[in-house]
Amino acid sequence: MTLEVLFAGGPDRWASYRTPLAMALAEAGVDARLADSAEDPERVEVIVYTPGSGPRDFTPYTRLRAVMGLWAGVERIVGNPTLKVPLTRMVDPAMTEGMREYVVGHVLRHHLGLDLDLARQDGVWRQRHVALARERRVGVLGLGALGRAAATALAQLGFSVSGWSRTPRDLPGLSCRHGEAGLAEVLDGAEILVTLLPHTPDTEGLLDARRLARLPAGAVIVNPGRGALIDDDALLAALDSGHLAHATLDVFRTEPLPPDHPFWSHPRVTVTPHIASETRPDTASRVIAENLRRLAAGEPLLHLVDRQRGY
Amino acid sequence: MTLEVLFAGGPDRWASYRTPLAMALAEAGVDARLADSAEDPERVEVIVYTPGSGPRDFTPYTRLRAVMGLWAGVERIVGNPTLKVPLTRMVDPAMTEGMREYVVGHVLRHHLGLDLDLARQDGVWRQRHVALARERRVGVLGLGALGRAAATALAQLGFSVSGWSRTPRDLPGLSCRHGEAGLAEVLDGAEILVTLLPHTPDTEGLLDARRLARLPAGAVIVNPGRGALIDDDALLAALDSGHLAHATLDVFRTEPLPPDHPFWSHPRVTVTPHIASETRPDTASRVIAENLRRLAAGEPLLHLVDRQRGY
Repeated sequence: MTLEVLFAGGPDRWASYRTPLAMALAEAGVDARLADSAEDPERVEVIVYTPGSGPRDFTPYTRLRAVMGLWAGVERIVGNPTLKVPLTRMVDPAMTEGMREYVVGHVLRHHLGLDLDLARQDGVWRQRHVALARERRVGVLGLGALGRAAATALAQLGFSVSGWSRTPRDLPGLSCRHGEAGLAEVLDGAEILVTLLPHTPDTEGLLDARRLARLPAGAVIVNPGRGALIDDDALLAALDSGHLAHATLDVFRTEPLPPDHPFWSHPRVTVTPHIASETRPDTASRVIAENLRRLAAGEPLLHLVDRQRGY
Repeated sequence: MTLEVLFAGGPDRWASYRTPLAMALAEAGVDARLADSAEDPERVEVIVYTPGSGPRDFTPYTRLRAVMGLWAGVERIVGNPTLKVPLTRMVDPAMTEGMREYVVGHVLRHHLGLDLDLARQDGVWRQRHVALARERRVGVLGLGALGRAAATALAQLGFSVSGWSRTPRDLPGLSCRHGEAGLAEVLDGAEILVTLLPHTPDTEGLLDARRLARLPAGAVIVNPGRGALIDDDALLAALDSGHLAHATLDVFRTEPLPPDHPFWSHPRVTVTPHIASETRPDTASRVIAENLRRLAAGEPLLHLVDRQRGY
């Protein structure tokens, strides 16, 4: 039976997903009718969803069986009371690779002091001692697909990596901690802290003034996770006082980050415009197609969101 | 019998090597007398050597049995006609780690376009597509201890890596080439080129105008190997014409790089002051102690330089 799928990602995304999604469906042997608008919401069985473009009210979709998000983060839909069907989020292998590259690149940038080198093109030969990765303690908050990939790559390069997650994990090459006491331990030792947690009520403002104060003096934060993980004012205060040496931020409470936001002009902040990693049509389409195949076959869906937990 | 060892690395290096070297000798069970000057050259059996501080004329050292270099490069001693005894060079595991970190850091910097991000802190939110490492072809010239470690780490991060060496090599995860035809192949495909060859008569000016022209338009060079591998004028011309997008250089024909050298002020050149990696007293002392143990025991020395080959 033909699955009726509504692609609710907006016209630009439809243009880039239309072909790869059709190809992935053919590859997976899924019989589906794909459209970017639904004249009759009562026919739609699956919505491929992004926040902003996707519906806010799911009530009219009376035959809806699943919503499949194209984003890794689901904080803008997970609490929607009109959504009564299973929700999946995107775990895209290409997005994981891109995130690993962004994190390793920025951690090495701070580890090696690249900003200093770039600023010193003035004809003065100033040699300096550079520490080795094995002498550098890196903390990674969040050990989902993205955090795990980044933490593992850093450990392979020799960094001394501690990871923290909500529930206990055991990952080769990493020192894994969990719970409030574990968080304190990871913060206490993190010369470079990478935040890759989902945004949930539990992680909202997780890095507040008290927790930022635990980081060693001169620590650096790299946040490609979610803007809301950090209390912006507490971060600015910790940077202004010199307790933190730098923050490299890819995600913000409001995006695009407003032009007058103090992060833009702060000498100790690097803003990147939410480019750490992106969902890619070719690989993401395969994930969607596999979940549509599973839905049609009555098999359990991949990357199902736990609505209670929030991700 | 006590080995008579002259540490000819200069007073600063003596200060940092004295203790770790004594500890390494004790650990290795080597009976040696260590001094930083020799009243009687005829007593000296081994010289621990760096260019600049070490002797230029080895003739007075009539009992000399070996010279053990503290540097990875030996181009300033290998052709010395007064040196008649075996010469070893430094292969320091910590130096290999540091080099791997510098190379991966700068390759990721160019791959991710970090310079652009750092320059764009002006309040304008400009998202851009960033390629994945697996879409990026990196060439590594030189597959000795340093080149191998850097190339392997880049391949582990997903980069498509081609390596080139004088003699054929077969290394897991890398596409290995050798000889003149192999060099052309690697250059043709290298969006980012890393040069980690030793300086020998064969590699002097290896990257001349003709070979630089083989690189794809917009290619980037990262040279932490030896300054003399590249023809400076040809490099500047290729940067000025826009054929090459950038060169990140850590080593130079004259060091310190003179303040008026055009590399300093060139917008497409990043100068780092020979800090990519350094020999570390603790790990290098263990290499020296092991070679002294081998010398005393009549065993073959590690990291012996082939005087004909030049490294």
